[in-house]
Amino acid sequence: MKTLNVDLGERSYPIYIGRQLLAEPQFYHSHIRGSQVLVVSNETVAPLYLNAVRQALSGYKLDEVILPDGEQYKTLDVLNQVFDGLLSHQHNRSTTLLALGGGVVGDMTGFAAACYQRGVDFIQVPTTLLSQVDSSVGGKTAVNHSLGKNMIGAFHQPRCVIADTDTLETLPERELSAGLAEVIKYGLICDQPFFDWLETNIESLMARDPEALAYAIEQSCHDKAHIVAQDEKESGIRAILNLGHTFGHAIETHQGYGEWLHGEAVATGMLMAADLSRRLGWISALDVERLQRLLSKARLPIVGPAQMSDHDYVSRMQVDKKVLDGRLRLVLLKSIGQALVTGEVPEAALLETLADYRDC
Amino acid sequence: MKTLNVDLGERSYPIYIGRQLLAEPQFYHSHIRGSQVLVVSNETVAPLYLNAVRQALSGYKLDEVILPDGEQYKTLDVLNQVFDGLLSHQHNRSTTLLALGGGVVGDMTGFAAACYQRGVDFIQVPTTLLSQVDSSVGGKTAVNHSLGKNMIGAFHQPRCVIADTDTLETLPERELSAGLAEVIKYGLICDQPFFDWLETNIESLMARDPEALAYAIEQSCHDKAHIVAQDEKESGIRAILNLGHTFGHAIETHQGYGEWLHGEAVATGMLMAADLSRRLGWISALDVERLQRLLSKARLPIVGPAQMSDHDYVSRMQVDKKVLDGRLRLVLLKSIGQALVTGEVPEAALLETLADYRDC
Repeated sequence: MKTLNVDLGERSYPIYIGRQLLAEPQFYHSHIRGSQVLVVSNETVAPLYLNAVRQALSGYKLDEVILPDGEQYKTLDVLNQVFDGLLSHQHNRSTTLLALGGGVVGDMTGFAAACYQRGVDFIQVPTTLLSQVDSSVGGKTAVNHSLGKNMIGAFHQPRCVIADTDTLETLPERELSAGLAEVIKYGLICDQPFFDWLETNIESLMARDPEALAYAIEQSCHDKAHIVAQDEKESGIRAILNLGHTFGHAIETHQGYGEWLHGEAVATGMLMAADLSRRLGWISALDVERLQRLLSKARLPIVGPAQMSDHDYVSRMQVDKKVLDGRLRLVLLKSIGQALVTGEVPEAALLETLADYRDC
Repeated sequence: MKTLNVDLGERSYPIYIGRQLLAEPQFYHSHIRGSQVLVVSNETVAPLYLNAVRQALSGYKLDEVILPDGEQYKTLDVLNQVFDGLLSHQHNRSTTLLALGGGVVGDMTGFAAACYQRGVDFIQVPTTLLSQVDSSVGGKTAVNHSLGKNMIGAFHQPRCVIADTDTLETLPERELSAGLAEVIKYGLICDQPFFDWLETNIESLMARDPEALAYAIEQSCHDKAHIVAQDEKESGIRAILNLGHTFGHAIETHQGYGEWLHGEAVATGMLMAADLSRRLGWISALDVERLQRLLSKARLPIVGPAQMSDHDYVSRMQVDKKVLDGRLRLVLLKSIGQALVTGEVPEAALLETLADYRDC
């Protein structure tokens, strides 16, 4: 078992990574302040792991809210079910919310914890690769709006993250790939040796080799924690974590939430960002080729939807959170292992990239 | 015109109090960072003051969302109309929300600003006495849930507050009284000389004498700002601002939002808290009598609803945000001008108070 500390002053917290952690009371106890816990999970994950969590928390007054499974349910409306559960069981300000599931459950539970009585504690127990490497680090919580992804949310740090790698054994193939997209992202934006390691080990990861997965999770969390510690509220450097996300969110929103997995849209978006970086003369065609090969081996999509027009992309990219006073800002690559945010993207280059990565 | 500064480090902001401020561009300009502004108002206030605000903000890209009027609309559902407005007009992270209206508009706009893209700027332009003295100071924002008032919210400070006292000329009689309930609260909890002044000047206030109103607003904001500066997130002393609110919220929730005005429920709640303080031997029967007389002169209710049982009170008081691990905590009075929070309230005394202040 490894422990990683996310260093955020008084909001610092540990990430526990390893096998068979889920059922161990010790990882929960020191991070729960009151006597009440509300577990939030979904219809897919609850039958697999809720019993183990119940046993680990047998000393607490435990209540449960089970949400429907899918990005299309990450809405204000469904969020209200969490508040219903908290209030109908009279949870007070010293309660702890526990997110048991993937990124959607984590985002919704974290946002509910940020808002309930103007802020209560929460613990993340991520059960997908994507949520273990990404959404459980950094304190971003949100729900979607029909006009934009993650547009309604808060920064709210968990008390701890318990990443039990055994849960990945039950993960559907497509979600394993989607998680790897975010893993690859860390190599691309800030960790070239890790990118090299991924190229060498992608087959082991796809075969769910436990040691390879544990290393990939640990390195991704380490890289993310390092960036978040420098810029908790995303006023600068943290924005590079959004490599591929501006394109990706446009795809997700256009296709309807739940059609493309978040990681799939990010994979295609990263490749578009790499191609655009090449057009600006920052990275080589060979670098783009390396990324494309790695994504393909991870069985991730490398082109956007056929029917999505330039306008479909650009209009949705305009509501991205990185837009400042009307100017589109994108995360691009200076090299493999170094990302930066720029507002200086010629529209012609952007349109060429969109054309080249349209499915046909 | 008076300027009061609320001292909260980098979140400090000014409150401007005076006549004819609403239409003055200068009070807005230095507090708006971007080029976009979304004005949120309601059906009652917009026809009266929206045009003046439009003119003051003529240089900005201005959009508007007009909400229905009333506490019963302070819900997550109606909040979504604000997000619809922001997203359909492509407001970005540098936008400013402007709340033009009473406490409901202020609470909803502030909470929308706290959540939109995980936090954008907002400005309060309160147009009721209650919101000028109370909800525009301190950064508490929230919406109601059918099971509890203000249960979903955030701490989010405005960039400035513009309290134009001329707007009180159009305020309905009942809302003037409701605002005075909160004014009286400041005298009770921390400012005995102000309580004395209120006893002397209550007739002028009820007659809407502009100078008396301006002084009452200024003194209330001053008292509140002093308390909030000591304890922004309500981990201690700030809780005394909730004098009368635990009883009051129970009444509001039981009666259905919008039946009793917030200030009316707080008035009755403060009298119950005073009576309970007397039963504990802390204040005299004369003190309770003074308060009752002042509330009556302000045409505020001094008894709770006839049909509301002990259980109706106690069950709703149990979900109050001040409850800690199941123990009810109440704000009571050590004297006129000094409040404190206590978890040591004998149930018998509480039930006697509820019985004595039940309408019959």
